[in-house]
Amino acid sequence: MPDDQGPSPDRTREPLRTIGFTDDAGVEVLDQTRLPHEVVRVTWRTVDDAAHGIATMQVRGAPLIGLAGVHGLALAMAADPSDAHLATSAHRLVATRPTAVNLTWAVERAVGALLGLPPEKRASAARAVAGTMVAEDVATCRALAEAGLPLLAELAAHHDRPVQVLTHCNAGWLAAVAWGTALAPVYLAHEQGIPIHVWVSETRPRNQGASLTAWELGASGVPHTVVADNAAGHLLASGRVDCCSVGADRVAANGDVANKIGTLLKAYAAAAHGVPFYVVAPVSTLDPDTPDGAAIPIEERDATEVTTVRGVPLGGGDPLAVRVTPAGSPARNWGFDVTPAHHVTALVTDVGVVACTAAGVAEALQRSPDRGTGPSRVRA
Amino acid sequence: MPDDQGPSPDRTREPLRTIGFTDDAGVEVLDQTRLPHEVVRVTWRTVDDAAHGIATMQVRGAPLIGLAGVHGLALAMAADPSDAHLATSAHRLVATRPTAVNLTWAVERAVGALLGLPPEKRASAARAVAGTMVAEDVATCRALAEAGLPLLAELAAHHDRPVQVLTHCNAGWLAAVAWGTALAPVYLAHEQGIPIHVWVSETRPRNQGASLTAWELGASGVPHTVVADNAAGHLLASGRVDCCSVGADRVAANGDVANKIGTLLKAYAAAAHGVPFYVVAPVSTLDPDTPDGAAIPIEERDATEVTTVRGVPLGGGDPLAVRVTPAGSPARNWGFDVTPAHHVTALVTDVGVVACTAAGVAEALQRSPDRGTGPSRVRA
Repeated sequence: MPDDQGPSPDRTREPLRTIGFTDDAGVEVLDQTRLPHEVVRVTWRTVDDAAHGIATMQVRGAPLIGLAGVHGLALAMAADPSDAHLATSAHRLVATRPTAVNLTWAVERAVGALLGLPPEKRASAARAVAGTMVAEDVATCRALAEAGLPLLAELAAHHDRPVQVLTHCNAGWLAAVAWGTALAPVYLAHEQGIPIHVWVSETRPRNQGASLTAWELGASGVPHTVVADNAAGHLLASGRVDCCSVGADRVAANGDVANKIGTLLKAYAAAAHGVPFYVVAPVSTLDPDTPDGAAIPIEERDATEVTTVRGVPLGGGDPLAVRVTPAGSPARNWGFDVTPAHHVTALVTDVGVVACTAAGVAEALQRSPDRGTGPSRVRA
Repeated sequence: MPDDQGPSPDRTREPLRTIGFTDDAGVEVLDQTRLPHEVVRVTWRTVDDAAHGIATMQVRGAPLIGLAGVHGLALAMAADPSDAHLATSAHRLVATRPTAVNLTWAVERAVGALLGLPPEKRASAARAVAGTMVAEDVATCRALAEAGLPLLAELAAHHDRPVQVLTHCNAGWLAAVAWGTALAPVYLAHEQGIPIHVWVSETRPRNQGASLTAWELGASGVPHTVVADNAAGHLLASGRVDCCSVGADRVAANGDVANKIGTLLKAYAAAAHGVPFYVVAPVSTLDPDTPDGAAIPIEERDATEVTTVRGVPLGGGDPLAVRVTPAGSPARNWGFDVTPAHHVTALVTDVGVVACTAAGVAEALQRSPDRGTGPSRVRA
């Protein structure tokens, strides 16, 4: 967990969290565009700062983007709590990442809570809403940790070596406020003394594994090793993986899972070797309105993410992007893929572990009545 | 093929080949460490130049490394054709890439041809041996092209759009003299007017796909698109791939295929979607002494290949390497993985298409008696 011992110099100063209000009414975020080479906190003072920060991915990860939007709304209300400014600010924030349903949901939820209040109460109410949603997010991720822990403990009981977990992309505390999703059980296991080691798939094209997951595991003191995405097949075939643990962007009603591009390849490889493949995601990610994976639109992103790689020059200097492809070669860049439900061993949710089937998804949704903690529930 | 139209300015000057003698008895190679950002030819004048060029990977790819060694031996014989110099030069060349069996085989073959000659005849004989081996390599790759062409033509007949081929790493003409292996049928299809498009998997950690395959396809005028390795699952699941075509570093007696790390993930994904997965490799790659994939040692390479990426800064300047991981995060780097024979639809060899089974491998070996064109045959 973020408040464990770790190599980051920040660790001695305060527990690591991704977002929070400052004492002087700003919003401080860990600038994830600077990781892993620099640990920089930036302070948003205005809704424009927040919109810029969300658009430029200072914050990323579905839960955190939503919370960042609400924090941005709080900044807006502190400056001008009028109905007109509430509407334009909400619109401005949502427009920064139009495909991020969690952002829309979170901002709309906050707007709904604020609209009925007189303007003079909206600034403090917006801060309170943001605080409530942060607390909810931490509790949800902690519940994921507790739900997944027995699965790791069971694997640990079968080995005289650390449990070997293969993850993909970044589904740790950097994507949320604390704990994260796919890594939440890992952090709890580590906290409880279960020996554990994480294989970190670098996750091209944006390298969220190599840059973010590796950094946050290191900052939290969890043993880990970075591998090329291509290594997953050999890792699984050579008995070096006890389970895969990944997050989800959306889980369809039948259990099909949309997640970061490359997840599907790991699922196939895990299935070929009978290695458990766990999807760890809050109930808010379950979308009963999407019948199956075929109904999930796959975002295509800018090809420059494929043609370039960002890093810090070996000879020193500021991080920069280098082009890896010939100037004349086109590239394409799908952001997600869909893993069929039958390749998912179990769905670890904040209301417990369920089968990754239509029945399992329905059961999880039923166990979580009216919590309204996610976008799909609200849209339903 | 290299002598088709293409965007490279070199194309108007001469057909692209990876290696050849210059008019003034040097050896000119296309410096592959400079690709794809610069097209630079370097001339080796001495055996030391050749050894340095092989060691620093100015040339790479099993066939080309072997041929480069023989060209280096020709430079050595031009300088000093004595027995002692022949022995030390051969040793020096082989030591540059100790795990490259093709290099050892090719140099030993040339030494065998030269030892029985009087020293004064060795310089011209060495050039002749190099020329013969180049011609053999071109013929072998051309035979791979012809063997694989009907498979692509068959796919073309079923579609109103270009045949979609997914490849991995670089198994094109840059790895040989011309044509290549996995891409040889693609070049022949293109030459014959069969509409074709290649999905180029970037092939981390060394990015041979993004840097070399994309460049050589572009230089040869073949439509192609670079994707992250992670995209293969989505490409296959969304019907965007008609077949996979990959090379091989070694094919075991039972048909298991060792090839660049990440090949295995594509094989699993292709199998999941019933898409043909072709391994295109000369008979010299078939190793009857290796019973199965479990007997193939998997080289582990320097982790800095994973933690760094090489490219040209977007703002301009010379190519450089950037680190993508946090300073404190370890990495591991296996160079190859093993694809089980049953995931390979067919083995395309220079003696025809065979089943990728023990019987198929034996059949290909039987069809190719005493050709002695490869390292495993010689060692057997």
